[in-house]
Amino acid sequence: MIRENDRRPSRLVVGLMSGTSADGIDAVLTHIEGTGVNAKVTLLHHSFTSYPENIRSLLLENPAALAAKDIAWLNFQLGELFAQAALTCLEGAGVRREDVDLIASHGQTIVHLPPESGSGATLQIGELSVIAARTGITTVGDFRPSDIAVGGQGAPLVPFADYVLFRHERKGRIILNVGGIANLTYLPPGAGIDEVLAFDTGPGNMVLDGLVYLATGGRIRMDEGGKIALAGKLREDILAKLLDDPYFAQSPPKSTGREKFGRHYAKAILETWPGLPLEDLVRTAAELTVRSVVDSIRTWVSPRGPVHELVLGGGGARNRLFLTRLPEELPGVAILTHQDLGIDDKAKEALAFAILGNETVAGNPNNVPSATGARLPVCMGKICFPPQRDAKQRGYREPTS
Amino acid sequence: MIRENDRRPSRLVVGLMSGTSADGIDAVLTHIEGTGVNAKVTLLHHSFTSYPENIRSLLLENPAALAAKDIAWLNFQLGELFAQAALTCLEGAGVRREDVDLIASHGQTIVHLPPESGSGATLQIGELSVIAARTGITTVGDFRPSDIAVGGQGAPLVPFADYVLFRHERKGRIILNVGGIANLTYLPPGAGIDEVLAFDTGPGNMVLDGLVYLATGGRIRMDEGGKIALAGKLREDILAKLLDDPYFAQSPPKSTGREKFGRHYAKAILETWPGLPLEDLVRTAAELTVRSVVDSIRTWVSPRGPVHELVLGGGGARNRLFLTRLPEELPGVAILTHQDLGIDDKAKEALAFAILGNETVAGNPNNVPSATGARLPVCMGKICFPPQRDAKQRGYREPTS
Repeated sequence: MIRENDRRPSRLVVGLMSGTSADGIDAVLTHIEGTGVNAKVTLLHHSFTSYPENIRSLLLENPAALAAKDIAWLNFQLGELFAQAALTCLEGAGVRREDVDLIASHGQTIVHLPPESGSGATLQIGELSVIAARTGITTVGDFRPSDIAVGGQGAPLVPFADYVLFRHERKGRIILNVGGIANLTYLPPGAGIDEVLAFDTGPGNMVLDGLVYLATGGRIRMDEGGKIALAGKLREDILAKLLDDPYFAQSPPKSTGREKFGRHYAKAILETWPGLPLEDLVRTAAELTVRSVVDSIRTWVSPRGPVHELVLGGGGARNRLFLTRLPEELPGVAILTHQDLGIDDKAKEALAFAILGNETVAGNPNNVPSATGARLPVCMGKICFPPQRDAKQRGYREPTS
Repeated sequence: MIRENDRRPSRLVVGLMSGTSADGIDAVLTHIEGTGVNAKVTLLHHSFTSYPENIRSLLLENPAALAAKDIAWLNFQLGELFAQAALTCLEGAGVRREDVDLIASHGQTIVHLPPESGSGATLQIGELSVIAARTGITTVGDFRPSDIAVGGQGAPLVPFADYVLFRHERKGRIILNVGGIANLTYLPPGAGIDEVLAFDTGPGNMVLDGLVYLATGGRIRMDEGGKIALAGKLREDILAKLLDDPYFAQSPPKSTGREKFGRHYAKAILETWPGLPLEDLVRTAAELTVRSVVDSIRTWVSPRGPVHELVLGGGGARNRLFLTRLPEELPGVAILTHQDLGIDDKAKEALAFAILGNETVAGNPNNVPSATGARLPVCMGKICFPPQRDAKQRGYREPTS
């Protein structure tokens, strides 16, 4: 088998990621020594490439409804953009493409239907063969389907990287990412990978951003730095009602998204409690995030082991309300950022996919069944080779007469 | 890199193919010794698995217009069906899945836009990770995008297999496939792979089938065995008009399809020459296929070298009119079937993809640039590993404290 033969001791790996916000592509260049959970990972460079406006609006406007022929076209277009993002990163790092071993690309999610919805399905695009052809570098991607194929949610995939990067022999660590949705990975001290716990706690910034957007008619899109929340008063009565939602009581593994906590959820709050100052509603929504995170930690994390540190990442790491309230609620837990552990927060997800891709070419499993609910460990991802300029000599074995 | 390490001397490879008729999946089990153009290929078993009716009608009803979320779902469903087809083939062959090295799957084409239409794009589905998970066998597929990524048409891909299977040191051979469209591969005697010529000559059975279908209100769908054509009289005046189409004069590489010679083309014939006996029209349409093949051979093949044999495959190999007319027009050329060369005609395409996949895992180029118009040879296909039941031991390298 291919997988048993790959014994390269270290690799230069490019990681590429574009999230559901569809603003553009994060690219990282990493040096990875070894494979498996003891791999040593060094981040060398990070760059960000914006999507052109026409691509972005196509992606934000209900991509799951696009016709197959548009998806086929977009798959190739995004391949070009991902390739360009990789080359931009290499140029920024001053590294020649001939010296790079691998590109690992998450792609752009167009559809994600977890198994609860009947048969699971997911669709990430950004043609791997285009990335390989434009860069000349072996390219790996399309990770999520492999986990769904063995009964998992196809998400979250970052806990594998959290385990590689952040586990500690004596410290229990939570990696909390507050994006639109908030999710956490818990790494007990000295844990094996099958002891990793990871799930979505509930909304992150999605509800506060939705409130601000709707109340200002789209003029303001987010509560920058938590300023609006910090000016408001917490309404415990409203918070109690919001915390009544059954999602918060549901045991992990669990995941949620825009379908549940998107703009219609913020709209319902504005309609149920009309005439209140926006600041109070935003303060209350921010507290919903804090409490659901803290309650999750108390209910599901603490029984599994001690928590010494919480690493806060995502947009929420710049929200001063979260930075004030989390330490108050979690006395004795040191609140850190990714930077404190030597990793640029904005590079984190692309870095995670570089780590996953490095496992793929070694044929190693890289999902975390305790996080995704998969029945089995599996080597996620598909491998695509670049064209070889010397193919004539090396590949086709011509008949010798 | 992975590709340089794969030195396995021989493999058991399953090939899977479903064509645009979308009736079901052809599966073959093959033994392949070596890689490259000198690989020795033995067909061990062939089986056919029909699609369920709901899948078939979805695929026949303009799949390029399906919504992305339906494509995502269908991709996983077809993965299950392809996996089942592979397992059925292994059962029929009496071979255990643990002994099989590789599955190579063409998938089901949903969209194919050659580069002439602007930016090229193609979409084949049938999730590789599902095939790998259900069978436990490494799976390769999604070949066409790699050729498009280097400027090719992503088609035809079968000429590589024709070259491996049928080239001859002293004989010039044409492999003519008469399906809906007719295409040929020319292998000059003792040719190198860059001397292979391949292109679509024009319609195969598509026009005659369309005429029969429309004239009988869908009661009869094809001219079985050429019976209707054999009962008709050739109308040279109509044939001359049809041969005026610029496609026939266009130099290769060239490809055509249902967009050009589909049902609307047959409808136009019925409207332009109304009141004629159906037999005469079908006889004339059959002659259109014969003449366009023969003219193509005279214009583009013969100047490149001698033609000693023509291997006739596809549905057209069972049409007695073609079997009568081709030898008349090609005196001195022996007309053979795939069976004459030891290969079941119905297994041919699936066999071709087994051969292509065997090259993919070796990291060898497997497109034929002189056939597809690609700028470069490229190793087409993506590789997907199955879950390993012993992953815990082999893959995750647990920290040892």
